[in-house]
Amino acid sequence: MMAEIPDSHPRKISLLSRQRIVEATKKGLLADSAMIAHGRGEAFDYLLGERTSESAKLAIKESAARLIEAKNPVISVNGNTVVLAGRPLIRVAAALGCPIEVNIYYRTEERIEKLHSLLQREKEIISQERAPENWNGDWNTAIMSVEILGKEEDGRIQGLEGPRSICSSKGIENADVILVPLEDGDRCEALVNLGKQVLVVDLNPLSRTAKMATVTIVDEISRVADLLLEYVVNNNEKSTKWDNQESLNQALNIISKNVRN
Amino acid sequence: MMAEIPDSHPRKISLLSRQRIVEATKKGLLADSAMIAHGRGEAFDYLLGERTSESAKLAIKESAARLIEAKNPVISVNGNTVVLAGRPLIRVAAALGCPIEVNIYYRTEERIEKLHSLLQREKEIISQERAPENWNGDWNTAIMSVEILGKEEDGRIQGLEGPRSICSSKGIENADVILVPLEDGDRCEALVNLGKQVLVVDLNPLSRTAKMATVTIVDEISRVADLLLEYVVNNNEKSTKWDNQESLNQALNIISKNVRN
Repeated sequence: MMAEIPDSHPRKISLLSRQRIVEATKKGLLADSAMIAHGRGEAFDYLLGERTSESAKLAIKESAARLIEAKNPVISVNGNTVVLAGRPLIRVAAALGCPIEVNIYYRTEERIEKLHSLLQREKEIISQERAPENWNGDWNTAIMSVEILGKEEDGRIQGLEGPRSICSSKGIENADVILVPLEDGDRCEALVNLGKQVLVVDLNPLSRTAKMATVTIVDEISRVADLLLEYVVNNNEKSTKWDNQESLNQALNIISKNVRN
Repeated sequence: MMAEIPDSHPRKISLLSRQRIVEATKKGLLADSAMIAHGRGEAFDYLLGERTSESAKLAIKESAARLIEAKNPVISVNGNTVVLAGRPLIRVAAALGCPIEVNIYYRTEERIEKLHSLLQREKEIISQERAPENWNGDWNTAIMSVEILGKEEDGRIQGLEGPRSICSSKGIENADVILVPLEDGDRCEALVNLGKQVLVVDLNPLSRTAKMATVTIVDEISRVADLLLEYVVNNNEKSTKWDNQESLNQALNIISKNVRN
């Protein structure tokens, strides 16, 4: 099943992502339901045409601007996000000078530990690469300075009960702007109620998370992360009065159009 | 994660199906990618409103009529189908007096064996239940007579290469009408090219399988199986000149409408 996928395959990137999720599940990095969540995402991405739409680009630009203007930005990652986009998100965190918090829905110490070490290993690897174009400064230092949070469990998200309320005091608890790919609806709502800006990446424009968030990027996380880095490094956007519902409507229009053709 | 889901939960049935797939994966009944396939199905079912549409009902009726009129009908099942709808499909097979063939994409002897024994055990359980309304005859005998094929590997699907060409000579090879839930596109095409009627259940109305099939039921397999039993037992339909594209268009319209509201 893990056979080579020919370059010519029209859905190569999608199939490679799938392989990564399957492999990571076998290694115990992901919860039982991670593959099911990935499958749901695949279906929505398929309906969106498996590419970043113009409205998604605007949402990524808006997110870049808000992360740059934030006092205490943080990138919260779950298992699927680490597996699919851990590296590019470390780059984004380096460019922003912000921490990454491992924060998972079905919390177990073992998985937190595995995801944490994976990100630390990725940092080592990425620190050897060349800085992104237009980046001024020491890229190696910027990468190695990205703090990976999540094991402390010394913060709480007010308004949630049980394990899902656990977070890092230096991360989500302290943050004014949070980028949270693949978030659950309840947590998104609790964070918004705390007055935080919540920037989510969700392939389902009808989800409660998509509707609750401050800015919703309806796109696949690894495509998002690459583009977000570009926008953060080039830093030529200011945050606006953002109409998130309008952005969601555009995503829904794309699905509707793809389905009718 | 396998916690009780309250009856009041609006998506209880969907969540129970998900639990079944997760459990069956742990028991080694399913291929690596089964959970991903299930997640894709979940997304499409969500967009279809998680219920059987009028056009799906017509497709199920049409399938019932064709299975009844067939000389050698067979129900081909893969892992997800056995897990989600093994019992109701055994009932359908009993009512039709046809065999069930276990036929899986990533063929391993171990999984064929496990799925085969699961169906045999299910037969024992179902044979104790009351016959469906309007059924004349000995239900217990009808159930116990359902032959579970798939281990023989003594047939071939002309036009396919490798493990995917393997089938049972008394099952798919000999059949004129095949009900194949969750089929792959290549195999569907090969079966159609052999002049067989292929009745598929596929939640994605845009898939190659959906487009290739003789009759495509765009609906969730366990809902389909229950309704199919009712139509087979009541047997008041004749097969028609079926316009499959029109049926697919109606499914696409439902998704498009749900997305735009």
